[in-house]
Amino acid sequence: MKRTLVAQTAKVVGEKVRLCGWVDSKRDHGKVTFIDLRDRSGKIQVVGVGKLGELGSEDVVEIIGKVKERPEKLVNPKMVTGKVELEVEEYKILSKSDELPIPVEGDGLDIDEKLRIKYRYLDLRRERMAKNIRLRSKVTQFIRNYLCEEDFVEIETPILTKTTPEGARDFLVPARLQRGKFYALPQSPQQYKQLLMVAGMERYFQFARCFRDEDARADRAYGEFTQLDMELSFVDQEDILQLIEKMFTKMVKELLPEKKISQSPWPRLTHKEAMEKYRTDKPDLRKDKNDPNELAFSWTLDFPLFVKQSEEDYFHGSGKAKFAPSHHMFTAPHPEDISLLDKDPMKVRGLQHDLVLNGFEVGGGSIRIHQAEIQKKVFDLIGFSEKQKEEFEHLLKAFSYGVPPHGGIAPGLDRILMVLLGEPSLREVMAFPNLTSGKIAIMDAPSKATEEQLKELGIKTTEKRKKKD
Amino acid sequence: MKRTLVAQTAKVVGEKVRLCGWVDSKRDHGKVTFIDLRDRSGKIQVVGVGKLGELGSEDVVEIIGKVKERPEKLVNPKMVTGKVELEVEEYKILSKSDELPIPVEGDGLDIDEKLRIKYRYLDLRRERMAKNIRLRSKVTQFIRNYLCEEDFVEIETPILTKTTPEGARDFLVPARLQRGKFYALPQSPQQYKQLLMVAGMERYFQFARCFRDEDARADRAYGEFTQLDMELSFVDQEDILQLIEKMFTKMVKELLPEKKISQSPWPRLTHKEAMEKYRTDKPDLRKDKNDPNELAFSWTLDFPLFVKQSEEDYFHGSGKAKFAPSHHMFTAPHPEDISLLDKDPMKVRGLQHDLVLNGFEVGGGSIRIHQAEIQKKVFDLIGFSEKQKEEFEHLLKAFSYGVPPHGGIAPGLDRILMVLLGEPSLREVMAFPNLTSGKIAIMDAPSKATEEQLKELGIKTTEKRKKKD
Repeated sequence: MKRTLVAQTAKVVGEKVRLCGWVDSKRDHGKVTFIDLRDRSGKIQVVGVGKLGELGSEDVVEIIGKVKERPEKLVNPKMVTGKVELEVEEYKILSKSDELPIPVEGDGLDIDEKLRIKYRYLDLRRERMAKNIRLRSKVTQFIRNYLCEEDFVEIETPILTKTTPEGARDFLVPARLQRGKFYALPQSPQQYKQLLMVAGMERYFQFARCFRDEDARADRAYGEFTQLDMELSFVDQEDILQLIEKMFTKMVKELLPEKKISQSPWPRLTHKEAMEKYRTDKPDLRKDKNDPNELAFSWTLDFPLFVKQSEEDYFHGSGKAKFAPSHHMFTAPHPEDISLLDKDPMKVRGLQHDLVLNGFEVGGGSIRIHQAEIQKKVFDLIGFSEKQKEEFEHLLKAFSYGVPPHGGIAPGLDRILMVLLGEPSLREVMAFPNLTSGKIAIMDAPSKATEEQLKELGIKTTEKRKKKD
Repeated sequence: MKRTLVAQTAKVVGEKVRLCGWVDSKRDHGKVTFIDLRDRSGKIQVVGVGKLGELGSEDVVEIIGKVKERPEKLVNPKMVTGKVELEVEEYKILSKSDELPIPVEGDGLDIDEKLRIKYRYLDLRRERMAKNIRLRSKVTQFIRNYLCEEDFVEIETPILTKTTPEGARDFLVPARLQRGKFYALPQSPQQYKQLLMVAGMERYFQFARCFRDEDARADRAYGEFTQLDMELSFVDQEDILQLIEKMFTKMVKELLPEKKISQSPWPRLTHKEAMEKYRTDKPDLRKDKNDPNELAFSWTLDFPLFVKQSEEDYFHGSGKAKFAPSHHMFTAPHPEDISLLDKDPMKVRGLQHDLVLNGFEVGGGSIRIHQAEIQKKVFDLIGFSEKQKEEFEHLLKAFSYGVPPHGGIAPGLDRILMVLLGEPSLREVMAFPNLTSGKIAIMDAPSKATEEQLKELGIKTTEKRKKKD
């Protein structure tokens, strides 16, 4: 007998159906037992006369029975299936549940997060979490379809790749086949996407997994995150801003109709204006910060190309230079400011664009440098040694075979979902987030490797040093 | 002035347009210079009277000119734009190209593959490669839309995860925040997808990046590959087979209309039949092996649950046991054969299903064990130590909170594309494949890490041992 989903029952009153799901709750009334049965589509009241008494919460059951209309005064208007109930004929327990270590009703925000992450497979049964994860899938699929319509090609780039000084600490992977050497996990597919422009793909995107061994914050997950990575050829900054604005506006309208964007077209602020007026480059432009449905998108533009290098901004590889890239080292200087590169680098504006939503930077990008000589000048200004420059030779070499002008943007998927949904942390929109200590959800990792594994890889672990922090 | 794509020119005869792209070829006829301009949409002949002479192959140019109809006898029926040409009014060189190290016309299969991979950004300009990469994007998008329509949710699972003995060698990632410990890159999201079933997601999929430190073969990429990872609750094997068969049949019809599936419904063979009749579990059932457009899909079923463990089948962790899982250790035994688990394990059939296409295994899957006691029995039979079993405790624990019966399948994206397109290797359908030595495309990786990086990670590289191979 074919399975019927709970949400379909209202359409088959009088029919015999087979339902499968979890016991959401149970109420015993002497001979009659009521349970709410939950599946992915919703919940329905199930009535067992002299049956179901043995069931416990979260047991998995298969129930065959007849769909009946409820008497009018017992209709539950809060449930999609509130007008019907299932009268049990037979049932089978597919799997019993022990008592749960965390409750799965409620929003769960008052439960110790370590426990929630340890038992993520239960935490995801929570209505709010299940909804977030399902919405995430809808959002990525909406964006993919939108971009494919706009002639973009989704292209996967390697995860095992090269360490490059892009601004954060790399994760390294020892290479068994090339002993003593290491792959790095990509901080972003930056160079690959630029190479795809050299390859003539013209419009590339991917939901790219990015890796940074940086301490976590509420709006920055430890270890890995996902960005909507995009790159376009033969465009200027305006093309990129318009594409993103149109796409997200349509997405909000279709997938989050209860939300309203407070200003269209989105305000554009220069970095200078933003700093002067709001003392931040990511101002929260909501008119009413207590309105959970207000979305205030804006653009911050005309960033300085360079910032003073700070200790905190761990910039692996940039040495003792005075200038660190504000966005990254591939960002093109403003055409009007090229001559300042020699005279007064701190005054050069970059063709950078930051996407801001409700006070969060939810995406950044730029028009890229496509002239080798300008790229070399930037490498000099940020203090690259000859050796470090060599590491980018493949990119400059690629540029010598006909490179189109290009640029891109990379909205952070986790962060944008967090803000769209008004969640307090990125972890509320990720299925299996890491803990800030780097411990991963559910499984006991990282974990020890065997001697044999390390020997094959040609590495040894060193003495544990005293903890500094 | 807005850019016009080459393929759109035929619709705007008489109009002035701006085209951008690469010089595909050039012919000088005294005062008149002809070039073929190439962009992502196609090629068009451009006529320069006293102009364009300075251009070289693969230069990137922007050309403004008028679209004209060609005289009837000069119409080129091979080009979409063969009825028109562009008469140059003005143009700009956006980027000059040096002489290319590899040609980008032709199928490229006669060029040393190392060179093709080193200059992948040029190799991808090749019409065949660009088409393959674009088709790959169309295929994944078709499948995503199909599965979303079928109520599946796409869910990302971690790349930094735990080492588990799943059959191949892991890549390890030293954990800076937990010195002496390591993450592993997932060989597949096997456990996460099963946990998502415990979580009640019911229908999950993802194009999952998987990592195996195994030697490469023509049909197995070194390092990383992509699989369409799927898992479903409350289904039996028949549901999975039908879903896949319908999906791929529709996909072939829509995206590869020149291909024909030689038999529908797809033949189903038991493992025993296949071995007896074809001496392989992945028989090539094409009627005419010389027909490049024939696709012979089939299913191989009723595999033995266990195989004898071989040395070649590097099975990390299974110790000295006699039995190795034929598919993997989470595959459910056939319900009729449960009692044989104690009496004669090698006779137990597993609820495994392999998808075969033209003699290649392009996907495998199974109904999973969802009863802790059977899972424990399988762990014993494959010789797990108590310590190894402990590593799966989170899964058995999860199963104690109400687990639905579930199963899945994971078609290999790279491999299925290779066979669909009749390409000689997986690398022909990947944008940036690795070399078999583990060296990655374009970039010089793996590469040395700095002392400082290793110190932070708490590891050292050991002496290079003599090469065994």
